[in-house]
Amino acid sequence: MAGRETKEAFVTLATNDTYSLGCLVLEKSLRKVGTTRQLVVMVTSGVSEPMRNQLTRVFDLVQEVNLLDSKDPMNLMLLGRPDLNVTFTKLHCWRLTQFDKAVFLDADTLVIQNIDELFDREELSAAPDAGWPDCFNSGVFVFKPSQKTYESLLSFAITKGSFDGGDQGLLNLYFKDWSTKDIARHLPFVFNVVSQAFYSYLPAFKQFRQNVKIVHFIGATKPWHHTYNTTLGKVTALPGTGHDSEFLQMWWDIFMETVQPFLDSSLGGLVGEL
Amino acid sequence: MAGRETKEAFVTLATNDTYSLGCLVLEKSLRKVGTTRQLVVMVTSGVSEPMRNQLTRVFDLVQEVNLLDSKDPMNLMLLGRPDLNVTFTKLHCWRLTQFDKAVFLDADTLVIQNIDELFDREELSAAPDAGWPDCFNSGVFVFKPSQKTYESLLSFAITKGSFDGGDQGLLNLYFKDWSTKDIARHLPFVFNVVSQAFYSYLPAFKQFRQNVKIVHFIGATKPWHHTYNTTLGKVTALPGTGHDSEFLQMWWDIFMETVQPFLDSSLGGLVGEL
Ligand SMILES: O=c1ccn([C@@H]2O[C@H](COP(=O)(O)OP(=O)(O)O)[C@@H](O)[C@H]2O)c(=O)[nH]1
Ligand SMILES: O=c1ccn([C@@H]2O[C@H](COP(=O)(O)OP(=O)(O)O)[C@@H](O)[C@H]2O)c(=O)[nH]1
Ligand SMILES: [Mn+2]
Ligand SMILES: [Mn+2]
Repeated sequence: MAGRETKEAFVTLATNDTYSLGCLVLEKSLRKVGTTRQLVVMVTSGVSEPMRNQLTRVFDLVQEVNLLDSKDPMNLMLLGRPDLNVTFTKLHCWRLTQFDKAVFLDADTLVIQNIDELFDREELSAAPDAGWPDCFNSGVFVFKPSQKTYESLLSFAITKGSFDGGDQGLLNLYFKDWSTKDIARHLPFVFNVVSQAFYSYLPAFKQFRQNVKIVHFIGATKPWHHTYNTTLGKVTALPGTGHDSEFLQMWWDIFMETVQPFLDSSLGGLVGEL
Repeated sequence: MAGRETKEAFVTLATNDTYSLGCLVLEKSLRKVGTTRQLVVMVTSGVSEPMRNQLTRVFDLVQEVNLLDSKDPMNLMLLGRPDLNVTFTKLHCWRLTQFDKAVFLDADTLVIQNIDELFDREELSAAPDAGWPDCFNSGVFVFKPSQKTYESLLSFAITKGSFDGGDQGLLNLYFKDWSTKDIARHLPFVFNVVSQAFYSYLPAFKQFRQNVKIVHFIGATKPWHHTYNTTLGKVTALPGTGHDSEFLQMWWDIFMETVQPFLDSSLGGLVGEL
């Protein structure tokens, strides 16, 4: 175990202040379950200065990632494919080579139970996607940072593209033997329980609910979009999102108790309104 | 390969005349892709005499299954649990011990490409359920008929029950290491593409569509519930079911060309109306 605390990291990503709120709640949820690993957030220029300060206060590392960084050898190829920009942003996690192993977590995930055991898995480990379960969901995955893999992923993206236009379609094509090769690369679904699972097979959700380790609020509606009553301290889920109200309340409890009080009053938009 | 043609079988089930229509279409879809294996349908007393005649004409074996058969040693235990009756009906497939290996197929499945390779898999092989992918979907599974397994499943059902009240919850508890033990027991999702996958991750569906081998019309609405225009020869999918119109049309083409013309005019209900 020696050194694992500093050589292994959880990594998330925000390209703007709104997703940064998700990162802040995710960070708190990880601390709450007593993780011993490093917490890293990757940010792009879309994240404001006051928000960066806030992220710096709580994350172990705030890593600026910049697609148009002139030191990036893939720069030229990228210029011709602006459509792949968001996809490429997540790929930057492979450049965090100061870590031996890492776990990427989307900013719309919430950790419910300690998940440090994920670092015993190898690249690329991920949970099945509930929509098409021979694909893995790319909101939670174990990987090994490597400049070589990063460059290989970039050229793959440029030549082969992504079948869904996002990182999930790209990563599933690149790590294409995930569904057939090794069951150890299949994270149990409780490590990435997507919101649609809350209703599409309800008896299973009830049966395995107490084992849920990570909740993932996929889709257009995110936890921060729901209505929150400050007097009652209760969230009211927007209709039709399928979000589980108990997990949603957990997200908001963390947000209101440990994130919102520290937000800079100069933050605008959704952040400023809260 | 010697003997596999007679010692291996596809097995389906109908407890009434309506589900029998599904069995008839399924049978034709299997013949069409040139299966070399035996085709078996299990029926209960709810299937009418004319429908049995029709099934006998096309299946290699029509096997009567009767829960309250006095020869069944589990009879007494069953009498106290009428709620598990439908679940138990599917379990009868394990009693087809004249076969070395078998593949169970729900009556609401449609075979698109030859699937005889399934007999190279071991018990219990099945594809992930799209709702909760650490469970397998019990609409398509490879198994080894065995009186011992049948009895073991029955006593398990009586003591442990099923977390969803159906055979899927029961079989997933019984074969509980499916999700963690051996990737070879994971059938590719193309062997059981459920209707919800048609829309929940559309880019994946498009990407893998040409590989689809079995379509499974899960849920309350079945292919036979949709509206069919006999003049145009076209099916119109009911709204909100998510059923793919191309696969639905394939089901109806088989039904109208090779099943409907042979139905006995004395058949009532949904069957009679067509
Ligand atoms: O405008 C965006 C969109 C996405 N993301 C990051 O990319 C991840 C994947 O996007 P999202 O979670 O919205 O996709 P979904 O899980 O709903 O498919 C997010 O969690 C964020 O970490 C971001 O920072 N800004
Ligand atoms: O009233 C019924 C219900 C089910 N079945 C059989 O049990 C299978 C499983 O039920 P169904 O396909 O309706 O469940 P779903 O796949 O929608 O969960 C059917 O395909 C039939 O083979 C039947 O014969 N009669
Ligand atoms: Mn996400
Ligand atoms: Mn079915």
